Amino acid sequence: MTRAAGQGEFLVPGRKARIDEVVASRTRTLTVVMEAFCDPQNVNAVLRTCEAFGVQEIHVVEGPMKPYDRNKKISQNADKWLDVRRWKTTAECLGHLEAEGFQIYATHLGEGSRPLADLSFAGKVALVFGNENRGVSDEALARADARYAIPMLGFVQSLNVSVAAAVSLARAVERRVAERGRHGDLAPEDARALRERFYVLAVKQRARVAKAEAVSARRRR
Amino acid sequence: MTRAAGQGEFLVPGRKARIDEVVASRTRTLTVVMEAFCDPQNVNAVLRTCEAFGVQEIHVVEGPMKPYDRNKKISQNADKWLDVRRWKTTAECLGHLEAEGFQIYATHLGEGSRPLADLSFAGKVALVFGNENRGVSDEALARADARYAIPMLGFVQSLNVSVAAAVSLARAVERRVAERGRHGDLAPEDARALRERFYVLAVKQRARVAKAEAVSARRRR
Repeated sequence: MTRAAGQGEFLVPGRKARIDEVVASRTRTLTVVMEAFCDPQNVNAVLRTCEAFGVQEIHVVEGPMKPYDRNKKISQNADKWLDVRRWKTTAECLGHLEAEGFQIYATHLGEGSRPLADLSFAGKVALVFGNENRGVSDEALARADARYAIPMLGFVQSLNVSVAAAVSLARAVERRVAERGRHGDLAPEDARALRERFYVLAVKQRARVAKAEAVSARRRR
Repeated sequence: MTRAAGQGEFLVPGRKARIDEVVASRTRTLTVVMEAFCDPQNVNAVLRTCEAFGVQEIHVVEGPMKPYDRNKKISQNADKWLDVRRWKTTAECLGHLEAEGFQIYATHLGEGSRPLADLSFAGKVALVFGNENRGVSDEALARADARYAIPMLGFVQSLNVSVAAAVSLARAVERRVAERGRHGDLAPEDARALRERFYVLAVKQRARVAKAEAVSARRRR
């Protein structure tokens, strides 16, 4: 019996099946870069949306110009099921993604931006979202394979960054299914390792819940 | 010279053109119902998104079971350019929308929900978003022409309501262009009245800015 099956044994069948289903929808060929966000609530909101849309790996760039690092507050709850990679600079992060064959699509409200609906998601794509006040850095814009924007029809000039990320990811998932045939696409060995990791996390979670219930039952006596 | 042109005269040409452009993208045949939201931040976020996507009229249901009314805190800033209608009950609100010929699409994560991508936006549509904890009410579900959900692929069971509204509206705008030929569709008389109202608001805004600048210049002396 494999180790994975061993951990899975401690879970009720429904929970195990749910984990298997989630892993089948996970991808590392679509990713998100959050560049120098200043509001940890936005980081958390984007992580939650990434998790909901099956994006397993997310990149957080701290940025050299950032006066203080509030990203340390990233919720353990949201990133527990994700791989959050942290970078000191945009150059390092985008250099890594380029070397891995990602196309870089940067959100940008200025000139030369294409509407979100025009983007292709046939290849590996990294969506870059910028600082809430300054937007995406000049460096990221210069390195981007495409600049895009969600068409805005009103007086409001921009959407909240977590809203922009959600609209972009919803579109990306849909386009990936149309252009690649499917969204979830982990290699078999990667999927096996991730299932095992999630089984372990779920068993621990169950143990914590059981312990809390026992404590609460003892107090009621 | 019409009264509209009269007010427009007090605006710089760029500002007037911008208002005319925004009004051309406005609609009342797509609307949003926020049912008994408890967090005013969510109300504001949805209003901001509606404004950005050209939805002119929004419905806020207070709900009979709501313990207290925090919706009074709706930001004047966001709803200044919108028509926010408030209702005491879901029955009144949906009754009005049905009488006006709207199809009611309620967000619902349970059984019988269709994926967002399957919905038609060829007719008049009201999207109903429910309370952050309880979701859409049984009454709204019973009256809905369709229940829908944004497909979730991870462990996260639901998106933040403002994120769900943004993903839904982005899709709705796109489908409306495909199915109806255009999104903005105010009747000529309605568009004229709205332009006039926005010219007045913009002139007042300009006057406030000028006054604030004068005060600040006096202080510097």
